[in-house]
Amino acid sequence: MINKDTKFLIVGLGLIGGSYAKGLHKNGYTVYALAHKQSDIDYALKEGFIDKGSAEVDKDLLKEADVIIVSLYPVKEVEWLKENQQYIRPGTLITDVCGIKSGVIDVIQDFLREDLEMIACHPMAGKEVYGVINSDEKIFEKANYIVVPTEKNTNEAIEDAKKIGEILNFANISTLSVEEHDNIIGFVSQLTHILAVTLMTCNEDEHLEKYTGDSFRDLTRIARINENMWTELFIMNKKALLEQITSFEDQLSLIKRLLIAEESEDLKEIFRKSTKRRALFDKK
Amino acid sequence: MINKDTKFLIVGLGLIGGSYAKGLHKNGYTVYALAHKQSDIDYALKEGFIDKGSAEVDKDLLKEADVIIVSLYPVKEVEWLKENQQYIRPGTLITDVCGIKSGVIDVIQDFLREDLEMIACHPMAGKEVYGVINSDEKIFEKANYIVVPTEKNTNEAIEDAKKIGEILNFANISTLSVEEHDNIIGFVSQLTHILAVTLMTCNEDEHLEKYTGDSFRDLTRIARINENMWTELFIMNKKALLEQITSFEDQLSLIKRLLIAEESEDLKEIFRKSTKRRALFDKK
Repeated sequence: MINKDTKFLIVGLGLIGGSYAKGLHKNGYTVYALAHKQSDIDYALKEGFIDKGSAEVDKDLLKEADVIIVSLYPVKEVEWLKENQQYIRPGTLITDVCGIKSGVIDVIQDFLREDLEMIACHPMAGKEVYGVINSDEKIFEKANYIVVPTEKNTNEAIEDAKKIGEILNFANISTLSVEEHDNIIGFVSQLTHILAVTLMTCNEDEHLEKYTGDSFRDLTRIARINENMWTELFIMNKKALLEQITSFEDQLSLIKRLLIAEESEDLKEIFRKSTKRRALFDKK
Repeated sequence: MINKDTKFLIVGLGLIGGSYAKGLHKNGYTVYALAHKQSDIDYALKEGFIDKGSAEVDKDLLKEADVIIVSLYPVKEVEWLKENQQYIRPGTLITDVCGIKSGVIDVIQDFLREDLEMIACHPMAGKEVYGVINSDEKIFEKANYIVVPTEKNTNEAIEDAKKIGEILNFANISTLSVEEHDNIIGFVSQLTHILAVTLMTCNEDEHLEKYTGDSFRDLTRIARINENMWTELFIMNKKALLEQITSFEDQLSLIKRLLIAEESEDLKEIFRKSTKRRALFDKK
């Protein structure tokens, strides 16, 4: 069980890994980190939000850690654990932060050593900029944290996973199955990014910037997109995402037909429904 | 020419009319208002941001005004001027605030008395709530103000229209032709509202609220939509809006095909373009 002496090892010191490190360290925990670049480790040590770190696979750090948080893109996450699970101390809890769960947690749990436990988590937080230099534990304050247990997980691991969300001060902590998670994420996160990118790239007029208002800015904030991470996430969640895109297309097509036919009353009915549904979100 | 003694009459005291009244009054101008409801006039008088007002068509106020700002929905704007131009003093400048120009300014200029001048303007500002009670001149501070002159307008009227934008402290003041205006608005304002509504109404799952993050909130802020005003605006700008919807659909369809085929490199290319284009907006 996580307690005040628990030592965390963050694997991958980017925006999210860095924000985890800062949040855990501020709350008094011992934090180690492994990163790809020595400069990221140097930065984190200089800023004082990790206690030790290495740009190599440091076997001592892997042995010392009580909880390992793998903060890599999904494909790398699977690869890293496959290569390095041999160095992890029996009984260590492993968790992650990636935005897609099928094709990741199921694959990992299949090859993971029997004396280790892996529990999937998804901190629904981010920024349009990345890298440890932009990390900030405050991005978690208004955000959702989802624990995604499978039948292979123990209650203790689920409680520990929730505890990490509490330490990091997430606004909401919930649990979902892998399938529920990937469907919901396909809608609320992946579809929204696809729409923002589509809007940003569907009109070639170079002079639109000066006529845009808040509406356009809001709808395209997330059109600044980390192309490598999101391409991987989209393709891994292809089935659910395609269903969401198709639902969106069908509804847009309906609105278009009503507009062509100038069916004012039907359009107003959709707009009233939209207003009513959106109002629910302001209460949360 | 507008000077410190210019008396403004606002016709229609809603969110925008009220914000105009507040902004003009704060800058020391005499402001009159006509409204549909006596309670709105009473509110504005009590709050002190109009000097006189009436819920009737007060012929004295119409005679006293030097500049009349019609702040009604487009269909009502045309009707109101048709009925009431007879009471307006010769030489009075008339302007408006509506979000669509073809079918409005051309129609009005056709029937308008020869001793009056009407110049179309579009303050690109708003809120998801409406009514004079929510009015606030600060909504103009970061917003665009577009003057939409036609061949029937004098240079003096164009300068006066710009002057109103300056008094109200808009961030950008520009001029566009009717056609340019309606095309650009079809994209940056109308398409964005259509997309927000579509996203808000394309998924019937009632439990999504608790899993949404900032992305979903940003993309649906404007899904709280004044159904009467926007239905009118959409239908009046049907041709341009349908073209914009179709461009969006084509681009979404391309992204969908690339996703189905798992064409990572082509997807990344679109995401890089999106990021690059969106970055331009942050500089403004």
